[in-house]
Amino acid sequence: MVDSDRTIKQALLKQRGKVLWLTGLSSAGKTSLALLLQDKLLKMGHLTQVIDGDILRHGLNKDLGFSLNAREENIRRVSEVAKLFVNSGIITICCFISPTREIRKLAGEIIGKDDFIEVFVNASLETCEKRDVKGLYKKARSGMLPDFTGIDSPYEFPENPDLEVKTDQEDLESCTNLMINYLIPLITNQ
Amino acid sequence: MVDSDRTIKQALLKQRGKVLWLTGLSSAGKTSLALLLQDKLLKMGHLTQVIDGDILRHGLNKDLGFSLNAREENIRRVSEVAKLFVNSGIITICCFISPTREIRKLAGEIIGKDDFIEVFVNASLETCEKRDVKGLYKKARSGMLPDFTGIDSPYEFPENPDLEVKTDQEDLESCTNLMINYLIPLITNQ
Repeated sequence: MVDSDRTIKQALLKQRGKVLWLTGLSSAGKTSLALLLQDKLLKMGHLTQVIDGDILRHGLNKDLGFSLNAREENIRRVSEVAKLFVNSGIITICCFISPTREIRKLAGEIIGKDDFIEVFVNASLETCEKRDVKGLYKKARSGMLPDFTGIDSPYEFPENPDLEVKTDQEDLESCTNLMINYLIPLITNQ
Repeated sequence: MVDSDRTIKQALLKQRGKVLWLTGLSSAGKTSLALLLQDKLLKMGHLTQVIDGDILRHGLNKDLGFSLNAREENIRRVSEVAKLFVNSGIITICCFISPTREIRKLAGEIIGKDDFIEVFVNASLETCEKRDVKGLYKKARSGMLPDFTGIDSPYEFPENPDLEVKTDQEDLESCTNLMINYLIPLITNQ
């Protein structure tokens, strides 16, 4: 049932669903990239959904903290939601630090490897800390935010991401275009 | 940001997002109605998503049991997910027994009253128990399923649903058409 529904929905939307999983440090630019990418895709007529860690922490996942278990449950739920969207043929952009290989593997397994595109949003810790969009690095350095990724909790670089964008070397526009060029053949090849 | 995104997505889809919240006893016909309604709406070119309690219990909500707290958490998460879909302009059909007025009020509050349409899928307990699609009434009567809605846990009738379909008096086709006739002016009036 799901498969035939998906086929019908993809035909209606004239696209194939895919999940772009944006992983990277806080302030690496995941949300900015996702929103710009969504804008561009919508202008091209492609229905797109951004699923953002910070936003979901006020909704679906507001009961969860930041322990290792809670982070894993966070990613599990988000992946299940992303799967619902992609199964409706929607281009789904997920923005989550998702710091460990294991946690990203979990996401890929739930979503399914045919639909899962791992995008490493790469910016050096130095750059991210200088940007510090939400003031979190400052808090973490002062000890107010324990287990902060990049400071006192590790970020494991993706070993073999499907795509890498270097937001400390290229501007948002170029990085977004790189993602679009990668994505378009995958979503339009019916 | 969300509002302008929603406007763009609704324009792309040529429809307005709405949530049809189907409440009723087990075996009242919620899922059958939702799937038939989805088929019809898709054929009319309307992107539609079914969010079904039983299916989500294998995915997003597989960590939850059936205690009162777990039921409430189930509905809370589902409502947050429905909100994501409706905010993308998608017709979202939720199938949940959602036995109490309080639990349906919670759903309506999370989703937002402008988007929330309460549909009472009404069939008598006698009819539902005779249908017993999943064999659950039999189990409940034998004491294997405690707190089963309609048997030893109450179902509170909606006092003022937006729509009522009587699946023990009309066939699925007629009930579905009733929902479509109600829905179409709401989703096409841009």
